[in-house]
Amino acid sequence: MRELQVALIGGGFMGRAHSLAYAVAPLAADLGARIVPEVLVDVDADLAARQARQLGWRRSGTDWRAAITDPAIDIVDICTPPQFHEEIALAAMAAGKHVFCEKPISNSAEESRRMAAAAREAGVVTQVGFNYRHTPAISFARQLLDSGKLGAPLQFRGAYLQETAFGADPHRWRAKRATGGSGMVGDIGSHVIDMAEMLLGDVVRVAARVRAWVPGTEGWTDESVRLGEDLVDDGGVWVAEFASGVIGSFAVNAAASGRKNQVRFELDATRGAVEFNWNDKELLRVSYTDESADHRGFRTIHTNDQHPDGWWRLAGLGTGYVDVSAIQFQKFVRAILAGGQASPSFADAAHIQGVVEAIHAAAVTDRWVDVPVRTERKVLA
Amino acid sequence: MRELQVALIGGGFMGRAHSLAYAVAPLAADLGARIVPEVLVDVDADLAARQARQLGWRRSGTDWRAAITDPAIDIVDICTPPQFHEEIALAAMAAGKHVFCEKPISNSAEESRRMAAAAREAGVVTQVGFNYRHTPAISFARQLLDSGKLGAPLQFRGAYLQETAFGADPHRWRAKRATGGSGMVGDIGSHVIDMAEMLLGDVVRVAARVRAWVPGTEGWTDESVRLGEDLVDDGGVWVAEFASGVIGSFAVNAAASGRKNQVRFELDATRGAVEFNWNDKELLRVSYTDESADHRGFRTIHTNDQHPDGWWRLAGLGTGYVDVSAIQFQKFVRAILAGGQASPSFADAAHIQGVVEAIHAAAVTDRWVDVPVRTERKVLA
Amino acid sequence: MRELQVALIGGGFMGRAHSLAYAVAPLAADLGARIVPEVLVDVDADLAARQARQLGWRRSGTDWRAAITDPAIDIVDICTPPQFHEEIALAAMAAGKHVFCEKPISNSAEESRRMAAAAREAGVVTQVGFNYRHTPAISFARQLLDSGKLGAPLQFRGAYLQETAFGADPHRWRAKRATGGSGMVGDIGSHVIDMAEMLLGDVVRVAARVRAWVPGTEGWTDESVRLGEDLVDDGGVWVAEFASGVIGSFAVNAAASGRKNQVRFELDATRGAVEFNWNDKELLRVSYTDESADHRGFRTIHTNDQHPDGWWRLAGLGTGYVDVSAIQFQKFVRAILAGGQASPSFADAAHIQGVVEAIHAAAVTDRWVDVPVRTERKVLA
Amino acid sequence: MRELQVALIGGGFMGRAHSLAYAVAPLAADLGARIVPEVLVDVDADLAARQARQLGWRRSGTDWRAAITDPAIDIVDICTPPQFHEEIALAAMAAGKHVFCEKPISNSAEESRRMAAAAREAGVVTQVGFNYRHTPAISFARQLLDSGKLGAPLQFRGAYLQETAFGADPHRWRAKRATGGSGMVGDIGSHVIDMAEMLLGDVVRVAARVRAWVPGTEGWTDESVRLGEDLVDDGGVWVAEFASGVIGSFAVNAAASGRKNQVRFELDATRGAVEFNWNDKELLRVSYTDESADHRGFRTIHTNDQHPDGWWRLAGLGTGYVDVSAIQFQKFVRAILAGGQASPSFADAAHIQGVVEAIHAAAVTDRWVDVPVRTERKVLA
Repeated sequence: MRELQVALIGGGFMGRAHSLAYAVAPLAADLGARIVPEVLVDVDADLAARQARQLGWRRSGTDWRAAITDPAIDIVDICTPPQFHEEIALAAMAAGKHVFCEKPISNSAEESRRMAAAAREAGVVTQVGFNYRHTPAISFARQLLDSGKLGAPLQFRGAYLQETAFGADPHRWRAKRATGGSGMVGDIGSHVIDMAEMLLGDVVRVAARVRAWVPGTEGWTDESVRLGEDLVDDGGVWVAEFASGVIGSFAVNAAASGRKNQVRFELDATRGAVEFNWNDKELLRVSYTDESADHRGFRTIHTNDQHPDGWWRLAGLGTGYVDVSAIQFQKFVRAILAGGQASPSFADAAHIQGVVEAIHAAAVTDRWVDVPVRTERKVLA
Repeated sequence: MRELQVALIGGGFMGRAHSLAYAVAPLAADLGARIVPEVLVDVDADLAARQARQLGWRRSGTDWRAAITDPAIDIVDICTPPQFHEEIALAAMAAGKHVFCEKPISNSAEESRRMAAAAREAGVVTQVGFNYRHTPAISFARQLLDSGKLGAPLQFRGAYLQETAFGADPHRWRAKRATGGSGMVGDIGSHVIDMAEMLLGDVVRVAARVRAWVPGTEGWTDESVRLGEDLVDDGGVWVAEFASGVIGSFAVNAAASGRKNQVRFELDATRGAVEFNWNDKELLRVSYTDESADHRGFRTIHTNDQHPDGWWRLAGLGTGYVDVSAIQFQKFVRAILAGGQASPSFADAAHIQGVVEAIHAAAVTDRWVDVPVRTERKVLA
Repeated sequence: MRELQVALIGGGFMGRAHSLAYAVAPLAADLGARIVPEVLVDVDADLAARQARQLGWRRSGTDWRAAITDPAIDIVDICTPPQFHEEIALAAMAAGKHVFCEKPISNSAEESRRMAAAAREAGVVTQVGFNYRHTPAISFARQLLDSGKLGAPLQFRGAYLQETAFGADPHRWRAKRATGGSGMVGDIGSHVIDMAEMLLGDVVRVAARVRAWVPGTEGWTDESVRLGEDLVDDGGVWVAEFASGVIGSFAVNAAASGRKNQVRFELDATRGAVEFNWNDKELLRVSYTDESADHRGFRTIHTNDQHPDGWWRLAGLGTGYVDVSAIQFQKFVRAILAGGQASPSFADAAHIQGVVEAIHAAAVTDRWVDVPVRTERKVLA
Repeated sequence: MRELQVALIGGGFMGRAHSLAYAVAPLAADLGARIVPEVLVDVDADLAARQARQLGWRRSGTDWRAAITDPAIDIVDICTPPQFHEEIALAAMAAGKHVFCEKPISNSAEESRRMAAAAREAGVVTQVGFNYRHTPAISFARQLLDSGKLGAPLQFRGAYLQETAFGADPHRWRAKRATGGSGMVGDIGSHVIDMAEMLLGDVVRVAARVRAWVPGTEGWTDESVRLGEDLVDDGGVWVAEFASGVIGSFAVNAAASGRKNQVRFELDATRGAVEFNWNDKELLRVSYTDESADHRGFRTIHTNDQHPDGWWRLAGLGTGYVDVSAIQFQKFVRAILAGGQASPSFADAAHIQGVVEAIHAAAVTDRWVDVPVRTERKVLA
């Protein structure tokens, strides 16, 4: 059986989550390959060694350049803060490695477009860590759309809500531009943009309001002060127009009391509708308009191996974060083995980054802002 | 006990709903007055007679002018299509009657502002039929906000979704300007705007996309054709900025498969959050941020007589549409008896109409549009 | 139009609830008759007068015998405590009146069987106030069963849960035998027994445990002390066997923290299943086993005028306690006009009372106890 | 770091599930030991080899005796059909191995009591695969009970529902005594008995009805035919009395259309209540009776690392079947390292088996049946 040796760059929370996923992915489904957790790299040598030991990596180190040029390595997995993504990814692709990169893909849409261009040039497989989209219930939604059973999409409503702004969350660096962040619109909003674009194609224009909040104060801060150099939105609302004519409503808030980690969407179409909520991740709610008059209403469909990407025969067994992360890497590995492409690719992530930047620009300029058009055809893998 | 004699103008569905509410209101709570369903007027004499008989009105007729100038009448209740509202309301107020008017209050914000000015001039009590806002769970949400327990509001997310566009719905005249409609944004979206303004104060600016749909076709129609003279939106999405700095995300769709009659909102604030859904109308979900770390989460609070406007001692007994309509008229009657003001008044409805027009203008012009500022102080009664 | 004059005996909470229902019933649907609230009788003359005035009754009085023998009266509605039901009902039926009686129908199954026999003898229409069963969603469940779409019933699970035991609830007299009660199994459990027998036919045997609780103490009291002369169960659990072979699991608790007024059931059958919860009273959850492998799951069906007993064209408009009470009296009136029978009749209620007594006997004797067999054929009206 | 070498006996579905759990357990939390998947044994050599390769076991084999006497092995994990459990477990314990055994622990309560006695004798750590109980939300429920915050327990309602009876489920062997099964009461009902006993202590008496169903037929079969030698119940209902005086209602059905894999319970106590449903496994619903009158109701608490056994800092991240299985083995490993005991032990499982047998006996004999008393003190580890 083929072995795929991985170098993991970055030993924090996502490093642990990916390690779990690498362990589960080949056990849960027959991939036709073994994933070997070869080397874990971090700037902190002690952390790297400790994490490697606990998380099952053969070696640890501090030199990412050495790791990515190591001929034994097939896959480079980038879990560093975003300001380092471009440099590492370009080097890895130049070395012919397949690259998995956490989101946000980079500090800016410009950087991410350079990364997408380099990926196309290098001919390697790239994938970005928008993990939630791999939930079987969402894959089932896309299958229903592709099959025509739902008819033509009309309206999308999505939200990502957390209450992390109320705590002393170390992840809050994600909100600050100086530390490579793009606000909560970029950090969590990007997931719901990804879901929308996966299902409906590209967003072309947005109008938006974003806000920042200083914990302990009452109400939003004056965003003109803070949405400048050191952008730190804690949430926002926007409306979007898709190339297809579909319209969408979006909301993001990291100061949403009581919402732990709720990413969700509703999609109305001409012959039906679907509804997904990560807090009920095992199921998709589906409505068909052509039911008999006394039987109309949403069905609650628990996914299993009858649905795309599902493993378990018994629906309701219990899909979790680990499962969805493992599916993410199963797809990546299968794309590598098949010599094809993966989704969401660097090109997809660059487009999402473009949407995030358009949202911020729209909020600051008080105008509808166009999203830069994708330069190559979107591939749904 | 004082008697309040009512003239009902318009014998359709809303006439029936109001008749039910008039019957229930004084039985469910001690109003200190009797409501007498005196005369039901409709252009169709047969319909008027038949409805009066079934719905318990003493008399029927076809001459609304005669009815509203009848000295015996205290209250004129207008349930006609909107294009007739202004003329009837102005005449009724000129005759010194208190006026209850169904929503939308009029064909245009301009008309509704004239009605509001006439109401102020006449010194009568006016109220507009935004019935859903009177749900005890929503009144409780406002009480929590007023008490400071939730802190300062941050973000509002509201939606009103139906699947009426899929049927041959006689109410679809509401969508057409020619028949006095203001699209589904005006017809159902106005309810969620009313809830938002009741809780958060006035909306000042909006950006929007609206769409029309021709049943049987695939996807939205070309809205540039239809959103002209004979405006017929079937839904839309918008973002709004409130005077207070709160931001909001809104969605309306009458082509939302599986959604029967779902008006709902979520409100995040600095110390807590609330969530309401008409399909669970008996309860308010409430979260407080300062709970202990292992006890955070939404509470599901079923309303009863411990909550504002609630009647029943036993929570969970079963609040329905009839109850909420009755509460609406209880408040109207109490305002009349107290010589005070009612909410939502003509002035409130005129502002809502202004928001609806701003949404349509924003959608057509592709720009943020300011909502005309209210000329008098908002009164929360 | 025919007029049906009502004498209401008992001016407490249920008197108010029935008054509301009489007001709403003929407005919400065309009954072909007017219901006239003629006289309200209570032992407390002041209460009777005050309630009559507020609740719209023409007259009040203290002499129930005078009221029920008044030739102008068509319907006697008994809302007194249960120990007075038999005497009043027998007298009213002897006077040729149709009788509506609140539940529990009497102090004992023996009394209730005498009442049922008298009703058969008198040839009048009788109905007992098991109001919840008239919810359109439950009527729809029965329609699905009758149609064969669900196949043959297999297992029933029902519960009625409240937290009234924690408060100083004046209704607690219902729990004490001395004041005509039959414990919470009789007071609220009877509703879920009624639903089960309406859907599945008669229960034939039960095994049970019941318990009493003294507020302020920790844990159940020693039931051997209290389940004697002055029976006061606060809840219990039982298993039941139906004549059809279906098996059922039941639970009742008035000390169920957080449960306001939750009556609910689930029914599994060979081709499908249904689920009802009064807290979601507008909808029935329905599953069909023969769906395609990727579309199995419960549908959430909001009832409207496409479903039996539903009024409103717009599903989701908001069915409440008032609506369901009004449906209850619509059915009673229609049975009177048609010269037929109503459900649940005195005979049905007598059988339910027999089940309640069997549960108490089973709990005390530690054995399965047979329910006395119904002496006449059950009629589903 | 200490290494614990595992021999897995049985290469079917549970073998895969355990392999996943062994991979995840040490990555998700610092155990202070490494779990080494050493040898996978199955009677089918090809299956053993294939599964070992995919699931990451170093070796495979067909000789379970060789495996369990191998000095390198620390843990024997038994995933065979139940009729082989006793022999393997006794041999493994005699060899001084710690033993993890899937449920049902054996063919009969008698066998399981012998196994429990041998475990006590051998002084090894034993644990049985009642995996669902390890859900952090359930551990939190027990913590709340232990802390006294809920007061004294009053009533328990539990159910385990599936629709597996409708399909050609290879797991149906579990229902047949000839193949080591104890019906669905034993197969899935045992999980909810385990949860009840974990929270409330031992069940002492039961009354029950069980039924069998032949797919394709209408209604339950004549159970007197089938509940004999080759016991195959497809579900049942029972009431239980606990040693503490708490009463409980239970239902199990494998012919519950629309229920995928729903194990759930509700527990009412004197100061509060909790509710758990595996389909919402991430959260516990908690009510406290002493809330202010307008704030009573269930809270929806998503578990995280603030709750017992929780790993993730971010509540709502997504607990799944894999997580809960991994927690199960984390506890087993920690008990081994600490030289203590694990729960549920062989003794606990033997008691559960006793309850299952009492349910079957109660159903057949039509009487309340006592559960054999545990011969040694229950240990909650």
